[in-house]
Amino acid sequence: MRTGQPAHDDVALRAAQSIDETRLLASIDALAAFGARSDGGVNRPALSATDLDARRYLVERAHALGCTVSTDACANLFIRRPGIDAAPPVMTGSHIDTQPSGGKLDGCYGVLAGLECIAALNDAGIRTRRPLDVAIWTNEEGTRFAPGAMGSSAFVEPARMPTYLDAADADGVTLRAALESHRRALPDLPSRGDALPAHAFVELHIEQGPQLENADVPLGVVTGIQGVRWYEFHCEGVAAHAGTTPMPMRRDAMTLAVTLRASLEEIAMSLGGEHTRVTFGRWSVTPNSINTIPSDVTFSVDFRHPDAHVLDTFDTLVSACARRHGARIAPLFTHAPVRFDATVLARLDAACHALDAPALRLTSGAFHDAMYLAQHCPTAMLFVPSRNGISHNPAEATDARHLVLGARALAHTLTTLCND
Amino acid sequence: MRTGQPAHDDVALRAAQSIDETRLLASIDALAAFGARSDGGVNRPALSATDLDARRYLVERAHALGCTVSTDACANLFIRRPGIDAAPPVMTGSHIDTQPSGGKLDGCYGVLAGLECIAALNDAGIRTRRPLDVAIWTNEEGTRFAPGAMGSSAFVEPARMPTYLDAADADGVTLRAALESHRRALPDLPSRGDALPAHAFVELHIEQGPQLENADVPLGVVTGIQGVRWYEFHCEGVAAHAGTTPMPMRRDAMTLAVTLRASLEEIAMSLGGEHTRVTFGRWSVTPNSINTIPSDVTFSVDFRHPDAHVLDTFDTLVSACARRHGARIAPLFTHAPVRFDATVLARLDAACHALDAPALRLTSGAFHDAMYLAQHCPTAMLFVPSRNGISHNPAEATDARHLVLGARALAHTLTTLCND
Repeated sequence: MRTGQPAHDDVALRAAQSIDETRLLASIDALAAFGARSDGGVNRPALSATDLDARRYLVERAHALGCTVSTDACANLFIRRPGIDAAPPVMTGSHIDTQPSGGKLDGCYGVLAGLECIAALNDAGIRTRRPLDVAIWTNEEGTRFAPGAMGSSAFVEPARMPTYLDAADADGVTLRAALESHRRALPDLPSRGDALPAHAFVELHIEQGPQLENADVPLGVVTGIQGVRWYEFHCEGVAAHAGTTPMPMRRDAMTLAVTLRASLEEIAMSLGGEHTRVTFGRWSVTPNSINTIPSDVTFSVDFRHPDAHVLDTFDTLVSACARRHGARIAPLFTHAPVRFDATVLARLDAACHALDAPALRLTSGAFHDAMYLAQHCPTAMLFVPSRNGISHNPAEATDARHLVLGARALAHTLTTLCND
Repeated sequence: MRTGQPAHDDVALRAAQSIDETRLLASIDALAAFGARSDGGVNRPALSATDLDARRYLVERAHALGCTVSTDACANLFIRRPGIDAAPPVMTGSHIDTQPSGGKLDGCYGVLAGLECIAALNDAGIRTRRPLDVAIWTNEEGTRFAPGAMGSSAFVEPARMPTYLDAADADGVTLRAALESHRRALPDLPSRGDALPAHAFVELHIEQGPQLENADVPLGVVTGIQGVRWYEFHCEGVAAHAGTTPMPMRRDAMTLAVTLRASLEEIAMSLGGEHTRVTFGRWSVTPNSINTIPSDVTFSVDFRHPDAHVLDTFDTLVSACARRHGARIAPLFTHAPVRFDATVLARLDAACHALDAPALRLTSGAFHDAMYLAQHCPTAMLFVPSRNGISHNPAEATDARHLVLGARALAHTLTTLCND
């Protein structure tokens, strides 16, 4: 990959300047209408009816922009703006599925900013050497089907698909069935080949954390992603009558669970220090009755850290902790820390410089589709600030000027990459 | 009420000796088939389809025994064996709804032992002065509709009914709708007047605790019932991203909830000592997602103690504790400790004595329909041991010899009361 040349940089700056604030913000609100919550948030599970409606809307928008749209075995969508040559494309994009109580920007911003870049290139009458693909990756959140980032991980490693098809949501609906509904909802989409080569992937996303806001810097050049461990702990007790069973005779599964939660948090903090992120987010209690002592409690553990060694040590310590307390432990998901590509990072730095935008280099605490794309082609990410660092919440918000600046920096970066 | 006379005691002993072990045990298994769980337990929510089937079965059995069956506004069933006079009846019985993971005996044993007493009186050709009513009280467990003991509390205080009708189960089905299904399922049952006077009520039940087993005594004469407090605590936090939100910035609703749980348990133990029973049985976590910090947690508190003063102090302390932690608290149910009637207790003592059965006097840790009937007529309870003290659990069990002895003592007591 060459570094950008002066001529290319002028073209890239024109593309950046053609980003239309009104159009970008309107598209964010339009997409948020699919699965809108009364509290201003969005609830749009992957491949749900509302997600299928949202995809139809984006496909129509892509066609209106003169793009072609194709799909693949995991219902990822690829919106292509043709290039002059048939060279491997530059890719951008993100996901449009949300948390049950999610916001308007997580994922959606990256997809809509990608479409805005295409619109800006059209408006500026710019033709690029390489095609530009805006990807919409399926089930990134992992809250309807586990694990998350199914679409992007299956794209870079198609052999994963068979292991995903039987994943079922809370209602017992399998991914296989959900993919079939997608085919019925969008019957005319051509399928594209597996894991076609790409020149580069750039994902624009909200930070979902407080670092940019605290530093009062509008853009974040993301050098990598923390490693992740997901486990489920199962604690077993004995269901017995709440009124008659003497306290010393009880085996309350919740008592064991809260003890474990405390031990696991202590292990995580002492091991990972200030970089530790540990969360116990999903709980299930059986029989869940006011006057019966809980017999079974399961809870999830989400541990993240930038240091692979810390993650491996955590694996060892939590297994020992589970054994010590007589609890069962099941690993749900694991991913090593990721380092992004130096040359793509250089293009992002150049874009920020060309736009006179201060930028911070940081590591992502959230995992993203770019985590998998990095295995496939030169990849990096760009962040804009999240107000109060809040995400996965209806209150998720980013100032309009930051949303626009992020889209301009993306347009600049994609344009130079497309002209390599 | 007179104490039993010799002639009556001979008749009572004949009734007791006519209890048929095989018939009693077979009826317990027959009723357990309605809502049977694969693990040997029973799941029969109040007025569910399985409960309606079970009621049809018991009504048929009652008719076969020559009894009449009537119902009332809360779908309580009254199975009557006529007496020589039209005097107020002696009542026995219990409930047949179960916990989600309940056993075969909780409630059911009292109803089926009552029917066995009627069969024994028939076999022995005994006619009694007063009618004998076996009552089946609706929704005692309170796990489908809150509060529990709806049927017996509405029987003694019909003014409660309007406040119960809109209670809804987890699927949003109201008690009103469930009562209508009951009317459709058993259309031919005559309605009986509200709160008709009764001479006495005796409820036979498994102990659901370890005291009789630990003392190796087959019968328990229950002198009263612990007071009860049910609350729901609501803890509020802020949903945020599990990977990006630094630990010091988090407001995790579950962290608050487990802290509260610990404080409440400490308050309960230090206040009530060895008589304390405190349980946190029902939990709800929102959004309940692996990679989102919990924004809302609600959990239930069930506190029981025989001392009214301790219960009142607990009310004050938990409210202060909730305020201190910024949690909301909602009282769900409350009942003062109950003392049973001395003369009915004397009849139970006499029955145990006549059968040469050792008996222990104890207080019930569980609440029962007798808790309400005590407001209506002279009332007491009789317990048989629970193996390992376990109840509200599929493993709930009582030795056959104890089940039979309990039924004999019940037959003796009911017969003397019916001849007052």
